[in-house]
Amino acid sequence: MSKVLAIITGSSKGFGKAIAEEIVKGNPNKNQLIDLVLFARSLDGLKSTKESVETISTNAKVIDLQSLDMSNIPDVELKFKSVLENIKWEEYSKICFFNNHGTLYHLGRIEDFSDYKNIQKDNDINTTSFVVTTSLLVKKLKELGSQYSPEVTIINSSSLCAIKAFPTWSLYCSSRAYRDMFFQSLSLEYKSNDKFKVLNYSLGILDTDMQNQVREECSEEDKSFYVGLKNDGKLINPNRSASICTNLVYSNKFETGSHLDYYDLDK
Amino acid sequence: MSKVLAIITGSSKGFGKAIAEEIVKGNPNKNQLIDLVLFARSLDGLKSTKESVETISTNAKVIDLQSLDMSNIPDVELKFKSVLENIKWEEYSKICFFNNHGTLYHLGRIEDFSDYKNIQKDNDINTTSFVVTTSLLVKKLKELGSQYSPEVTIINSSSLCAIKAFPTWSLYCSSRAYRDMFFQSLSLEYKSNDKFKVLNYSLGILDTDMQNQVREECSEEDKSFYVGLKNDGKLINPNRSASICTNLVYSNKFETGSHLDYYDLDK
Repeated sequence: MSKVLAIITGSSKGFGKAIAEEIVKGNPNKNQLIDLVLFARSLDGLKSTKESVETISTNAKVIDLQSLDMSNIPDVELKFKSVLENIKWEEYSKICFFNNHGTLYHLGRIEDFSDYKNIQKDNDINTTSFVVTTSLLVKKLKELGSQYSPEVTIINSSSLCAIKAFPTWSLYCSSRAYRDMFFQSLSLEYKSNDKFKVLNYSLGILDTDMQNQVREECSEEDKSFYVGLKNDGKLINPNRSASICTNLVYSNKFETGSHLDYYDLDK
Repeated sequence: MSKVLAIITGSSKGFGKAIAEEIVKGNPNKNQLIDLVLFARSLDGLKSTKESVETISTNAKVIDLQSLDMSNIPDVELKFKSVLENIKWEEYSKICFFNNHGTLYHLGRIEDFSDYKNIQKDNDINTTSFVVTTSLLVKKLKELGSQYSPEVTIINSSSLCAIKAFPTWSLYCSSRAYRDMFFQSLSLEYKSNDKFKVLNYSLGILDTDMQNQVREECSEEDKSFYVGLKNDGKLINPNRSASICTNLVYSNKFETGSHLDYYDLDK
């Protein structure tokens, strides 16, 4: 049986780390080997993910991990491409790319924005680098030719914010709308290839570092809601949401290009 | 009767120029003075818009025109802010901001992208500068204080692509989804202020330079459709679409934050 390859951005912590763990735990083919390629800014974080993943199963191996700053677009192109060059693609029958990285940025009313330089940087992280990494992967697959036809699943870590606007969340909502739409177009470009599927997976409100930031930076009106979620134990464990996502990826039972939400799936 | 102020980006040609003309032609208060502030890259284009507008009515006056490269974010901040500083706001009872500029960029399949540097630049034009200009305007209005309460309408030149994905149009669709979502959030931030309205106006397929580019760069599958639109006279005159838009702005009869489409309105 040939191997699974999982490429995961933003995998030093939070949902990305949980995906790395759950793609290993959740494989219904217990003897199948899984190789992982991890990207994030923090090399230490990536090493900790590697250790965790390889402890879960001896079938799992992190074959590459790369510190990468997604705000540096020329660097993203260079490093991501070079990692893809080194992969032995013929060894894999299933390829999953979790385009998961992103930042929560600039919570607040639009009239109170001031740091436009950082808004530009965060747009590069949340949208431009998302385009570049996706594009480099599908370019590479095209280059490998039509004889090579693994099952390919490409997953965007999405949010309710991609389809519903909220006051003070304008930039987050907008970048998530961008990513969902980009993946919808991608799915249409591969509509005739039933081995190529694209998913916008809305994670739910997770108990991760991002929620610390939300509780600190959100508007006064929102504070009791988000603090309440934490105090009442309503935040979702990232591994729980990740396992719902990896189940989808293994079962492959979803319509390509769709936006699916954790809250609708975990019943 | 105090004056109307119309600020229009991308107003050297195409829909932006048509908006400048129609906001003057369409004013139901025939004696009201209208001041315009125009932005675009081409200074010559802006001068031609100025001439056209001031020929239409002696009530219309272009009080400022600025050559501005929307891909240069620090410059956008500096120049846009400085133009806003020079406006005599107390003279106006109605302010319309048409955030209209944008590019059509990189038609083609995602697997064929290569020029990531220009994708980054075009994201700056289509999304980041859109955020910066919107934010600077609403910041300025906030700064003027609550005694100053003109009718404010903020309009995004939107597209069907903002709400529907198309293959080979991924970047255009994504940036339009971003802009629509940003304006939906903006509308929610001003929900309690019934003098402040936000509109995502979908222009329709216009007979402008952009359609020349579409006919040249679109996929082979799309070519007969777009060439057909041109040859069969189905492309919309930009002034026709602009007049539908300016009628909405003057009548003010639309729900803030909504996405309205030319094809549904011109009956």
